Amino acid sequence: MKHVISAIVENQPGVLAHVAGMFAARGYNIDSLVVGRTEDPALSRMTIVVIGDEQVLEQVRKQLEKVINVVRVRDFMDADYIQRDMMLIRVHVTPEKRPEVLALVEMFRAKAVDICRNSMMVEIAGPEDKIEAFIDLVRPYGIHELARTGIIAMQRGKSKTGSETQNGKA
Amino acid sequence: MKHVISAIVENQPGVLAHVAGMFAARGYNIDSLVVGRTEDPALSRMTIVVIGDEQVLEQVRKQLEKVINVVRVRDFMDADYIQRDMMLIRVHVTPEKRPEVLALVEMFRAKAVDICRNSMMVEIAGPEDKIEAFIDLVRPYGIHELARTGIIAMQRGKSKTGSETQNGKA
Repeated sequence: MKHVISAIVENQPGVLAHVAGMFAARGYNIDSLVVGRTEDPALSRMTIVVIGDEQVLEQVRKQLEKVINVVRVRDFMDADYIQRDMMLIRVHVTPEKRPEVLALVEMFRAKAVDICRNSMMVEIAGPEDKIEAFIDLVRPYGIHELARTGIIAMQRGKSKTGSETQNGKA
Repeated sequence: MKHVISAIVENQPGVLAHVAGMFAARGYNIDSLVVGRTEDPALSRMTIVVIGDEQVLEQVRKQLEKVINVVRVRDFMDADYIQRDMMLIRVHVTPEKRPEVLALVEMFRAKAVDICRNSMMVEIAGPEDKIEAFIDLVRPYGIHELARTGIIAMQRGKSKTGSETQNGKA
């Protein structure tokens, strides 16, 4: 099962290496790991999708909380949250197939960002299963190149459910 | 100056730790680092935005090419490419301010993905400067939370410009 964990970490060199090294050493099955900016330039947010049972999720949380530069860890286990992935994909599209592929682009609320003679580059953002469905539908045309960001997540609404730990204040 | 580098790496535990450790040890100024899936399950794509002059870019390329699990490195120095960032942002929005904020969402071709009493969560994808412009415009309302993926990049069209090196075949 996939679990999403979000960690607020100090924006310092070495933090990513530390966390990635810890995961590699323990052999966790990490589906994606995104490190991106937050509203505070001093902090970054890591969003980690780990594959495993609840015990694995608990272990990963505990390990993250031990890292000194990790400010806050939360999982979305019991929370109602939004998760989003983004992809750039270049699909093989001959001129006569363009309308077909553009119809897909429109249905998925994606964007054609570059078109040339025999290919089209599409930007698509959304839940992971939407991205996967789009890939499945364009695969028969031929995929030249594909780049994905991995998942970022945010809890819906304002109520605090799920479990959150503040390092040093737990 | 910001430079975008893309590296195709083997999808194995430890590769991210290795690369992140190398950057940390050398003190490169990494603006963002994204590791995501590709069209081949055995390979991941790392997109790295490094801040520095051409010499720094060249050093980072060389260091990456030395890593055994790195299959291919390219920079977009002289290439015409598309770069995209994605963000989830929760903005403080009172009911009477909703139309104003929704107008911004529409103008930026963003999506309101969650609305509650006093806040709205927006999903927005696009070039980095578009994301930055949106943040600037909603900042006066109050930003509750913000998560970004970092940049992914892909070259336009089919012509191979920019410089690319195949590990072991350069």
